[in-house]
Amino acid sequence: MKVKVGINGYGTIGKRVAWAVNRQEDMEIAGVTKTRPSYEASTAIREGCPLYAAHAEDVDNFEKAGTKVQGTLDDLLKKVDVIVDCTPGGTGAKNKELYDKAGVRSIYQGGEEHTLAGISFNALANYQEAWGASSARVVSCNTTGLVRTLFPLQQAFGIQKVFASLIRRGADPADKKGAALNAIEPSLKLPTHHGPDVRTVMHGLDIQTMAVVTPTTLMHLHCIVVDLKKEVSEKEVLDVWSRSPRLQLVSGKDGIKNTGQIMELAKDLHRVRGDMMEIAVWKDGVKTIGSTLYYYQAVHQESDVVPENVDCIRAMMKLERDNLASIERTDKAIGLR
Amino acid sequence: MKVKVGINGYGTIGKRVAWAVNRQEDMEIAGVTKTRPSYEASTAIREGCPLYAAHAEDVDNFEKAGTKVQGTLDDLLKKVDVIVDCTPGGTGAKNKELYDKAGVRSIYQGGEEHTLAGISFNALANYQEAWGASSARVVSCNTTGLVRTLFPLQQAFGIQKVFASLIRRGADPADKKGAALNAIEPSLKLPTHHGPDVRTVMHGLDIQTMAVVTPTTLMHLHCIVVDLKKEVSEKEVLDVWSRSPRLQLVSGKDGIKNTGQIMELAKDLHRVRGDMMEIAVWKDGVKTIGSTLYYYQAVHQESDVVPENVDCIRAMMKLERDNLASIERTDKAIGLR
Amino acid sequence: MKVKVGINGYGTIGKRVAWAVNRQEDMEIAGVTKTRPSYEASTAIREGCPLYAAHAEDVDNFEKAGTKVQGTLDDLLKKVDVIVDCTPGGTGAKNKELYDKAGVRSIYQGGEEHTLAGISFNALANYQEAWGASSARVVSCNTTGLVRTLFPLQQAFGIQKVFASLIRRGADPADKKGAALNAIEPSLKLPTHHGPDVRTVMHGLDIQTMAVVTPTTLMHLHCIVVDLKKEVSEKEVLDVWSRSPRLQLVSGKDGIKNTGQIMELAKDLHRVRGDMMEIAVWKDGVKTIGSTLYYYQAVHQESDVVPENVDCIRAMMKLERDNLASIERTDKAIGLR
Amino acid sequence: MKVKVGINGYGTIGKRVAWAVNRQEDMEIAGVTKTRPSYEASTAIREGCPLYAAHAEDVDNFEKAGTKVQGTLDDLLKKVDVIVDCTPGGTGAKNKELYDKAGVRSIYQGGEEHTLAGISFNALANYQEAWGASSARVVSCNTTGLVRTLFPLQQAFGIQKVFASLIRRGADPADKKGAALNAIEPSLKLPTHHGPDVRTVMHGLDIQTMAVVTPTTLMHLHCIVVDLKKEVSEKEVLDVWSRSPRLQLVSGKDGIKNTGQIMELAKDLHRVRGDMMEIAVWKDGVKTIGSTLYYYQAVHQESDVVPENVDCIRAMMKLERDNLASIERTDKAIGLR
Repeated sequence: MKVKVGINGYGTIGKRVAWAVNRQEDMEIAGVTKTRPSYEASTAIREGCPLYAAHAEDVDNFEKAGTKVQGTLDDLLKKVDVIVDCTPGGTGAKNKELYDKAGVRSIYQGGEEHTLAGISFNALANYQEAWGASSARVVSCNTTGLVRTLFPLQQAFGIQKVFASLIRRGADPADKKGAALNAIEPSLKLPTHHGPDVRTVMHGLDIQTMAVVTPTTLMHLHCIVVDLKKEVSEKEVLDVWSRSPRLQLVSGKDGIKNTGQIMELAKDLHRVRGDMMEIAVWKDGVKTIGSTLYYYQAVHQESDVVPENVDCIRAMMKLERDNLASIERTDKAIGLR
Repeated sequence: MKVKVGINGYGTIGKRVAWAVNRQEDMEIAGVTKTRPSYEASTAIREGCPLYAAHAEDVDNFEKAGTKVQGTLDDLLKKVDVIVDCTPGGTGAKNKELYDKAGVRSIYQGGEEHTLAGISFNALANYQEAWGASSARVVSCNTTGLVRTLFPLQQAFGIQKVFASLIRRGADPADKKGAALNAIEPSLKLPTHHGPDVRTVMHGLDIQTMAVVTPTTLMHLHCIVVDLKKEVSEKEVLDVWSRSPRLQLVSGKDGIKNTGQIMELAKDLHRVRGDMMEIAVWKDGVKTIGSTLYYYQAVHQESDVVPENVDCIRAMMKLERDNLASIERTDKAIGLR
Repeated sequence: MKVKVGINGYGTIGKRVAWAVNRQEDMEIAGVTKTRPSYEASTAIREGCPLYAAHAEDVDNFEKAGTKVQGTLDDLLKKVDVIVDCTPGGTGAKNKELYDKAGVRSIYQGGEEHTLAGISFNALANYQEAWGASSARVVSCNTTGLVRTLFPLQQAFGIQKVFASLIRRGADPADKKGAALNAIEPSLKLPTHHGPDVRTVMHGLDIQTMAVVTPTTLMHLHCIVVDLKKEVSEKEVLDVWSRSPRLQLVSGKDGIKNTGQIMELAKDLHRVRGDMMEIAVWKDGVKTIGSTLYYYQAVHQESDVVPENVDCIRAMMKLERDNLASIERTDKAIGLR
Repeated sequence: MKVKVGINGYGTIGKRVAWAVNRQEDMEIAGVTKTRPSYEASTAIREGCPLYAAHAEDVDNFEKAGTKVQGTLDDLLKKVDVIVDCTPGGTGAKNKELYDKAGVRSIYQGGEEHTLAGISFNALANYQEAWGASSARVVSCNTTGLVRTLFPLQQAFGIQKVFASLIRRGADPADKKGAALNAIEPSLKLPTHHGPDVRTVMHGLDIQTMAVVTPTTLMHLHCIVVDLKKEVSEKEVLDVWSRSPRLQLVSGKDGIKNTGQIMELAKDLHRVRGDMMEIAVWKDGVKTIGSTLYYYQAVHQESDVVPENVDCIRAMMKLERDNLASIERTDKAIGLR
């Protein structure tokens, strides 16, 4: 029997996780919540996800709009083995008690603190930590992006230390409001939280980060400097990454010079919603000087954590012992190469 | 036997037309051209479109990049019944002689002048004009957008005159360069060419237009004022449009307030490449005052002309007598409702 | 003795009005308020404007930051003849009682309703309505822009009716947040409030408007269609405008093609803060077809209302009988030609 | 007698250098060139700069537009002691022969190669290298920015090595076209040229750089990591910079959180053209961990090199022996604190 999964918060991340879960053979969506009737609520119904009101007081609004709901979050919690909390950052912390009381396992997103679940998850780096766990946090899009390229480097060559500048997008494409329209804004509190967040899955890594927000909606871009424990060539680095999961090596020579063109590639690959769930690394933007490695990568903030949520369910529900096997099952089902 | 179609210029429009043609039961892609090896050239191969070099001198570049081509445009022209010219605006005019000499029917895009083919095409408004024609021009994305909503109004109520302000996007999402990054630029030559262009398919319509370019990549947006020949209610207008093909009625009340959210809806509908081939009209942005109608519509410049190209092939090749029947066949095959 | 003016709200508009008032020979700034210590509060001090805390509870914050304040708004009200309310839209309505109680004349900005003061003001169109008034509202940047070009047309030729599409900027250049970063958003409630707002100063004018917001920070741009009461040539129209105050005729032929280049012109004119207080009209974007006139204009939302506030003070304080004389005095003092 | 200065190319940089030169007591503008009549050509005349056509064939265009020119570049070269080449990047190299032939000293901008003049100039770091030189290159806006903060650090503490990520603006505010409208684009060729360029004035410095372009027009922003030769506190660093010329320490706590707000500060300081010729460093964005220093700075690409050009003239013409004295004279004359 398939594991029953609920999604609390059918928004940018929630709707994608729901879709990915329903593509797997060992799990399925039992229901999703929404606070308001909207085109995204209609999407849930169209995709065959039973719709629930997030709160009892929201039911009226749905009824007035002619959108039928199956009940409320409380009702949904009775029907699921695990709930994936995709509510806005910080809200998950308030919901945990509810999930615990209902005896339901829970997964949180990167907007929550590590301490909420005590376990922060990346399928490649620390799958086993979530084995059978009652709750876990899938790390943020940026942290996921950093781990996807750094972990294989650490395994292959050893890492002395890392510095990364994160050039963040200002808002998602469908957001009604966003960052300053024509300015760059630094995260003044240094070092930024991104470094410590990587250490929740790659324990003990020496990493410092700075970050700015820019007026664009498509992807984050990272400028990364890694002091490796040995001298390596660019080819050796690319060889490691070409064997690592959920990376997409792209090339300026092929006409992929900016984040807009990476998104175009995702569209050309007929990816659902135009998502690029892999981290894109520029092959011709990799440089080693002695044991220091410089590279650029781009992170699709709307989708890179989606397959990680699927793997996290599998680890928590003990559906698959081996992390690479889980990754392969997940990716095959959702059409990643 | 299926009609053999070639695409000269496998870029933003070309790759979409190729995909749409291959979804139809009465036509298929015999080959597409590209000037350079790139990720879009790889897309052609991945989508099963035989790849040709646009010019003999390009072949070397493809070979160096390890991308096999089937020949050049000249070779392709020997294998097709009709060629769809999707080269950059103004280039089509130079290619026509080549197509004519090869005895191949040809379709051009809105970047060419009306006089090139003498027939400008919109499936709803003047399908019959292209019947059996040796060449025709599918009108531009903006003209197509205007005709899709105006033609049904003219049929239902009669139109006295039209004024439209076109707020244009500055570049496509994957363009490397674009309009001014933080400015609005008017088209100073008044009235703009958009009004006369509508008259190439809706002959005699009294329409004037103004236009500006803005720093956004997603869609054009039109502010339209129509003096109808009779007083009508908003409901009557919406009733007409709800029965018209290739329109998507959206609503701010459902959370679709801007062009980013229309694109999100297209993604949520799992449209290939996230395309919204229909013209989006805001239901709650329609207002009638006496016999004057005000409304907003949004045009996905990358895709709205795609199904029109398919219908144009069908008219030119005499594959279907009735325009509404052709529209229905086209749209069903590519997943439009 | 100079009229004593207070500014409540030393922000985008307030700091500019303070500067302009201090350039006049018949009025001076007695003080300005700010809610928080910041670089703008420092600007007030540097420009010689006595600084007051907006509310008693704000005083502490200023003291902690080492910024000396002269008291609170209540203290300031005792020292002024007239207060210019430049607080965020809607806040002025709450402040009026306070001003009235202190027996101080008050001026509001376009973010307030017409009914608050009962008088809406534009120096060119209805200066006399504010003569000796105890309170008045200077209309918004967009309304001011429309009146500056429409009123002279009405005087010269008579106006049948007007339609305008307003392409609005999404945020001011120094705003921390703004509109959608990469989308166009229409004002769905039609007709928009801009038309009725013009009628508060040009009573009885037949005008309808539509509006969209775009991701740019510099200026609003209007596409305007005017049905005049007689046929006129473009030259006649330009002649009228060249004799009208606070208009800047620009030309694409001179290299001024977009709103960024108008702002560059203002910088090249060494305008303080790079402001373009005049409405910019494109000479080569003016077209008449019969009695219908089409034109584009750009509005610097941060500054066009500034000289209007000065004139409004003069009318309310009965400092100058003639509106054109007041306009000339104001403009000369602040360096407009 | 004042040194006679010519400007070849009265554009973004040229018009600013002309203005700054005319503010000095020991030099003056003898003429400026322009290729085309435009609003910027009118600016030259308004600012009292004799106007020359860049090439003989341009004279006609000026005459047709009714703009009087004093001759051509050749005529101008006969009247000047030194010419400041502000033509587009790469053009200076073509002009040098002309200047040399006319026996005129020449200054180039950062768009030219170091080898063109053999001397790259920054007033603080290597003023003496240009002493009496016949030609020199003022380094680019980004290099100038890096040197302004790094040189004082090197003097005070010694520098082991530097890494900087440059987040570049995509175009200037008045540019008609620019970078991708909604994407981030990395400079794939690593390490980027910015590091070596710093070494043309700070010889032997160990510095590596990466760079991206973002869709904004106002300023570049740098994320900088410096390994110093000793442990220092943030206060010690700020003390050094507060004594260094052409730096503006700003603070998020004062409401200056992004590059738009720095530009607002420049406007509030009534800087001509709203320029911020100093490099802005965020006081609350400075962090030291051991001997490693992290900080953010913003560079106004349109103006930071302007005072450097003035100092370079002074060094080449032997007008002032001491670099700090020259800097002080320059800055005082143009209103920098």
